[in-house]
Amino acid sequence: MTPFFADFDDLRRLMPGLPAADPVAMAAARAHQAVLTKPPGSLGRLEELAVWLAGWQSRPVPALQRVRILVFAGNHGVVAQGVSPYPPEVTAQMVANFAAGGAAINQLAAVAGAELQVVPVGDLLPTADFTEAPAMDELGFLRAVQTGFEAVAPDTDLLCLGEMGIGNTTAAATLAAALFGGDGRRWAGRGTGLDEAGLERKIGVVDRALRHHGQALSDPLEAARRVGGRELAAMLGAVLRARLERIPVLLDGFVATAAASPLALLAADGLAHALVSHRSAEAGHGALVEALGQVPLLDLGLRLGEASGAALAVPLLRAACACHAGMASFDTAGVSNRA
Amino acid sequence: MTPFFADFDDLRRLMPGLPAADPVAMAAARAHQAVLTKPPGSLGRLEELAVWLAGWQSRPVPALQRVRILVFAGNHGVVAQGVSPYPPEVTAQMVANFAAGGAAINQLAAVAGAELQVVPVGDLLPTADFTEAPAMDELGFLRAVQTGFEAVAPDTDLLCLGEMGIGNTTAAATLAAALFGGDGRRWAGRGTGLDEAGLERKIGVVDRALRHHGQALSDPLEAARRVGGRELAAMLGAVLRARLERIPVLLDGFVATAAASPLALLAADGLAHALVSHRSAEAGHGALVEALGQVPLLDLGLRLGEASGAALAVPLLRAACACHAGMASFDTAGVSNRA
Repeated sequence: MTPFFADFDDLRRLMPGLPAADPVAMAAARAHQAVLTKPPGSLGRLEELAVWLAGWQSRPVPALQRVRILVFAGNHGVVAQGVSPYPPEVTAQMVANFAAGGAAINQLAAVAGAELQVVPVGDLLPTADFTEAPAMDELGFLRAVQTGFEAVAPDTDLLCLGEMGIGNTTAAATLAAALFGGDGRRWAGRGTGLDEAGLERKIGVVDRALRHHGQALSDPLEAARRVGGRELAAMLGAVLRARLERIPVLLDGFVATAAASPLALLAADGLAHALVSHRSAEAGHGALVEALGQVPLLDLGLRLGEASGAALAVPLLRAACACHAGMASFDTAGVSNRA
Repeated sequence: MTPFFADFDDLRRLMPGLPAADPVAMAAARAHQAVLTKPPGSLGRLEELAVWLAGWQSRPVPALQRVRILVFAGNHGVVAQGVSPYPPEVTAQMVANFAAGGAAINQLAAVAGAELQVVPVGDLLPTADFTEAPAMDELGFLRAVQTGFEAVAPDTDLLCLGEMGIGNTTAAATLAAALFGGDGRRWAGRGTGLDEAGLERKIGVVDRALRHHGQALSDPLEAARRVGGRELAAMLGAVLRARLERIPVLLDGFVATAAASPLALLAADGLAHALVSHRSAEAGHGALVEALGQVPLLDLGLRLGEASGAALAVPLLRAACACHAGMASFDTAGVSNRA
């Protein structure tokens, strides 16, 4: 049974009761790391990842049997302002490409050993142009959140979240500005490949949207409704559901991180269960992950979306689990420990 | 038939004739990347990796069927100077742990889908203490190079190189200083976990070795013989053999990178077929990869050796190959390209 979100308060009510990572499982995982045949700390972030997974999975030896990738797709009225070099039809065409197995994420999901599900949000109906009006009315926003919330299978061991939506880096940049301050120049980037003139236009679009909505953006959920998008709202719902189910999450790049960010403002540790997987080449992502106090696992210059960065990070988590579960201890292997 | 290295000149003679990456295969791979259903460049380094693999494998669509990991083990006379918190017996004990499947690299090789082979070099006989004498005589050095050279199977699609050897970060630091200048303080780090006093002692050991050998270290091979180690010499031989067979190489951390570095000085593009996989937390590695003009694929704080960083990077190369081989084109997928 999933809750029905009738208004913003239904979402806000969940915040004080968000579950925390299991400290007992984490302590057991840390103690186990200390006896394995390696110098203490020498596996670096792999050790932290094993302990983090143990905490959210609530078991001393975490496992990644069911890794699931959710890609949410949506369309954006703001494309009327000329913020993308690609036409908006590409969103639906790429959804068909996902179904046919021809996109990057299809290949990356196979390498990651992950199950891919693509969810077109709101039948890909475009949002309103948020330079002139709220992107969604309250019901439309809550429905999109609900779509994401319900898309998460509770038996998931690790959830990867990403998106597809022509125009959505403009939504992400505007949302990031609303949540963390600064203007279009701080947050807007070239997206799928804008030229200099296009980037200047996009910066202007973000700034106009910020002026249009003004003080209404000071509430994180209201900001997500006014300058976000349906696929961003769905990712917010999915991150929230994952938290309630204690499922660890890998966030993809700029759009997914911006989409999840309201949770970091609504609860102090609201994204403790979610790691930013890859530092996108999209200009604003570095500042966004810094604002969240995170250090992405990867930095390989991707700027594709589709959960591509999250899928790429899955083998690192598999490696962390494999070392944690499979290594011998100094005692059993007969290896001399340091004096 | 592999050559027999009777003296340094047998190695040097190979340098002018080192094969280059295949420019035709690289151009074909680049052209293929341009039609895939993604904005140009949006897969970042995955695109570069696919083109790099295509060049060395000499085929427009590279593949990673046979990924092999070679871990060379060796012992070091310089441990008498108190440069490691672990006793030298650990080298042989860890070789037994590799054979039993209990080390980190056993788990990481499985995640990478790679075959692991461990090669104890020179029966793990320690080198001489290089603060007082050359680590190896010329014959001993050449035999170790030959061991590495012969360990590489010519049908390998990708070779990962790493090591095990108590004391070998001291050899690597001294070799890096000999090859690229600077003193012990620039290159020595905490290795498996030296405390402050141990680090100061290690810095002093590097500086004493540099003074002892003096100008003799200006020749890269002579430096590798005098202040290197048997497993470092074997890695040098393996990297050289890989180049002659046009096998792309992933170098592990500080010790493997230092071991391969003489090739970068003996030939201008001597390491063009070798990528540093992971930036080690060992202090000198950042400066070393910078001296080589490389940017490691990963930066996860590991400082273990054993080819662990190289194994971790294998799935990234698999991802690059999978996208390159499996993605649809704009035309076949019916996706609108940018205007």
